[in-house]
Amino acid sequence: MRALVFVAHGSRVESSNDEVRELAARLAPHLGADFERVIPAFLELASPSIPEGIDAAVTDGASAVEVFPYFLAAGRHVEIDVPALVEEARARHPAVRLELRPYLGALPGLEGLLAAALSSKAR
Amino acid sequence: MRALVFVAHGSRVESSNDEVRELAARLAPHLGADFERVIPAFLELASPSIPEGIDAAVTDGASAVEVFPYFLAAGRHVEIDVPALVEEARARHPAVRLELRPYLGALPGLEGLLAAALSSKAR
Repeated sequence: MRALVFVAHGSRVESSNDEVRELAARLAPHLGADFERVIPAFLELASPSIPEGIDAAVTDGASAVEVFPYFLAAGRHVEIDVPALVEEARARHPAVRLELRPYLGALPGLEGLLAAALSSKAR
Repeated sequence: MRALVFVAHGSRVESSNDEVRELAARLAPHLGADFERVIPAFLELASPSIPEGIDAAVTDGASAVEVFPYFLAAGRHVEIDVPALVEEARARHPAVRLELRPYLGALPGLEGLLAAALSSKAR
């Protein structure tokens, strides 16, 4: 089983965290062919944490877990904090293939995706 | 002439601001049929500011300016600060059609766009 852990920063504003949880829930049916589960997780200020999200996927039977940082820009969180948590999870789960995907702002083709959503035809 | 003002929060990390500027530059050719200009602008900590970006579009001859908040979640910035700046720009430029688009996290179809980028076929 493959799982996607959808990682956001986390906010003191709980409605912002709910936005992330709802987006992950809406994403799941679109990714069903690739990921049986899409699990939201937060770097800080909200639950579950990233280790909790990864561990939940493994407990559910995931043999492959991909971590997607829903972050706009590189910086300490994207470059250091999230990779360190993935590395620690690899040590906890040596039999699981754990992979870190490019963050949102570095997704290949992001400009094409945004253009499709922003063009007049998208209204 | 129509212009899109691509609004990010702005960061003390100048490379993060450059990521936004570069994304806006990559976006421009994709949106050429809808917007002759795509102008990056920042709510704080970076230049140009949102008023400067809007005013630059008008100075360049834009009769319609759409403002897109490149923000992941609703909150004070998306709900209050950016709309207030758009409202002030409307008062400065009564002949220009100024429109605020939904922010990134609220783009219709965002989950489909993310799924396309995250599916195994996107690798």
